[in-house]
Amino acid sequence: MQSRIRAGILEQGMVDLLREAGVSERMESEGIEHDGFEMALDGRRVRIDLKRLTSGKSVMVYGQTEVTRDLMAARAASGLTTLYEVPDVALHELKGESPYLTFTHEGQPVRLDCDYVAGCDGFHGIARRSIPEDSIKTFERVYPFGWLGLLSDTPPVSEELIYATHERGFALCSMRSPTRSRYYLQVSLDEKVEDWSDERFWSELKSRLPAETAARLVTGPSLEKSIAPLRSFVVEPMQYGRLFLVGDAAHIVPPTGAKGLNLAASDVNTLYRIMTKVYQEGRIGLVERYSEICLKRVWKAERFSWWMTSVLHRFPSMDGFSQRMQSSELDYYVGSPAGQTTIAENYVGLAYQQVE
Amino acid sequence: MQSRIRAGILEQGMVDLLREAGVSERMESEGIEHDGFEMALDGRRVRIDLKRLTSGKSVMVYGQTEVTRDLMAARAASGLTTLYEVPDVALHELKGESPYLTFTHEGQPVRLDCDYVAGCDGFHGIARRSIPEDSIKTFERVYPFGWLGLLSDTPPVSEELIYATHERGFALCSMRSPTRSRYYLQVSLDEKVEDWSDERFWSELKSRLPAETAARLVTGPSLEKSIAPLRSFVVEPMQYGRLFLVGDAAHIVPPTGAKGLNLAASDVNTLYRIMTKVYQEGRIGLVERYSEICLKRVWKAERFSWWMTSVLHRFPSMDGFSQRMQSSELDYYVGSPAGQTTIAENYVGLAYQQVE
Repeated sequence: MQSRIRAGILEQGMVDLLREAGVSERMESEGIEHDGFEMALDGRRVRIDLKRLTSGKSVMVYGQTEVTRDLMAARAASGLTTLYEVPDVALHELKGESPYLTFTHEGQPVRLDCDYVAGCDGFHGIARRSIPEDSIKTFERVYPFGWLGLLSDTPPVSEELIYATHERGFALCSMRSPTRSRYYLQVSLDEKVEDWSDERFWSELKSRLPAETAARLVTGPSLEKSIAPLRSFVVEPMQYGRLFLVGDAAHIVPPTGAKGLNLAASDVNTLYRIMTKVYQEGRIGLVERYSEICLKRVWKAERFSWWMTSVLHRFPSMDGFSQRMQSSELDYYVGSPAGQTTIAENYVGLAYQQVE
Repeated sequence: MQSRIRAGILEQGMVDLLREAGVSERMESEGIEHDGFEMALDGRRVRIDLKRLTSGKSVMVYGQTEVTRDLMAARAASGLTTLYEVPDVALHELKGESPYLTFTHEGQPVRLDCDYVAGCDGFHGIARRSIPEDSIKTFERVYPFGWLGLLSDTPPVSEELIYATHERGFALCSMRSPTRSRYYLQVSLDEKVEDWSDERFWSELKSRLPAETAARLVTGPSLEKSIAPLRSFVVEPMQYGRLFLVGDAAHIVPPTGAKGLNLAASDVNTLYRIMTKVYQEGRIGLVERYSEICLKRVWKAERFSWWMTSVLHRFPSMDGFSQRMQSSELDYYVGSPAGQTTIAENYVGLAYQQVE
């Protein structure tokens, strides 16, 4: 999965967690701290001053693929075995005291006995699908549009991210580094990436940005271009016997607000705190609380991602009243210090759940 | 219309306006200042401390019918002619320099020549219907439920209002005075008031309140019981030539959040400031800006009323994801100081628009 280009806005809590785990060295030198971001509302520009509104918090721009590389390197350096992409994975006896995995490795069947199983294998992985359907409940929303993304070796149009809403649709100006930019356009679900030449992409992007921003946009050949659908998805509970679902295996958010990776990190944090207390203090009862603790924060991040998506995109089915509610929401929230604070505190990330 | 029982939560701005107009004497002695209100979320109680969250603002509990009586008394005392409920009203030449009204009074046709016409005659009045349909645009939302209200001479269950959301539906505990209570229940649109005995009403209300609140509810015979639908409605623009639409003639809000009367007051404020400058300073061009100035505030109050209605009621068509978004919205907003502040500052009323 390293080849896929993923979001890279790390919440303060995730940054702190990477530091605590001792895998932050490269992030410290290559990551870019952002103290704010910009919202462009039909040409009007408003800065959300994260640092001021949250009493000092910020986010870190550092690609998801970079985080993965750092974690894989740390794992390798620790000398522990890691097997990637093994076939025929199956989970067994999850409800019992002695769960185990089976899979094929170098042509041989392997059995791995476990105390607990962490299902960190994403939305399409085997972990969630190993839970009987009547033991979980799913919640889902599919949005009637996608994001067309373009990566290019051009300097970002602005030092900070720009979330733009426009009558032609949403656009996002993001970045990976001072020389690599990542831009997105809301497109209808029937669009095909082949129909989007670089020229067409840049032209459409410019039309959705404030004139002064469009004027300084540096364009260049795309390194990668792709269309992704937007979806909200949550499974409850996030555990089944001794299996814990972590990150995308349990929940998906639309990318607006960059919560996906961060939510995975906060699940990891919760599971890590629980496991530490289980093994060091024998507090085995905490295991039952994993899902309940995670879901409180998951639903708040789902809400923020849904809200950001709802207020910034054009929805084909909106009637006049809904359109006015959408623009009134934006007007109110960016025009009120309290409203701006609700955006900022969610964007930098709500506090991690405590495990007591 | 005095016989209809109407809301009576006056925003700080409306209280100040009544004082400025010299019609606040009875309100000062009989009105009850409220520094907060309570939200009951499936039994959990949260107080919204208006005064603390808005740096000192509050609301005044004083019935709409009382405000109307005070205004009618002041009008009578000033010796100016007022005619109520005259038949055959028609508006003429609104686009010209010399608009006029015709109506029948004591069997005789009357013509009233005007500089300007203020259409303050409510949603069903003649004013808005006198504007050609192609000159205005309407925005509307009808909610799939109504409010069943009961008035009784019983002490209010709490000193402050309680907005309760419950799996059985929304409920509101309000009041007119220390000895007169006003309670509301969300009911489906096909309910009939005849099917609601007092006993059934009280029993249903108790089931939707936190146990400790239900336990101290004092019940008694109803003085009035009625079902009202909930609607959001706005017309743009709020003027046509020399006719200005004021209050319900231009916009309706659902009662959740008590913005209807207050929004009428802020329209009156805007029109009064404009007319003062027109007649005292000759700034006739301000007339053109009435609608634009009003609508900014109207849409924000429409948004707040829509939001309060959306998060506190059960909607028959909600899927699982929407239900979780609704409860996550409430959890987030009542759990965050910034979120609570957005509720409080809207409830006490956003600042009146300036006329410069």
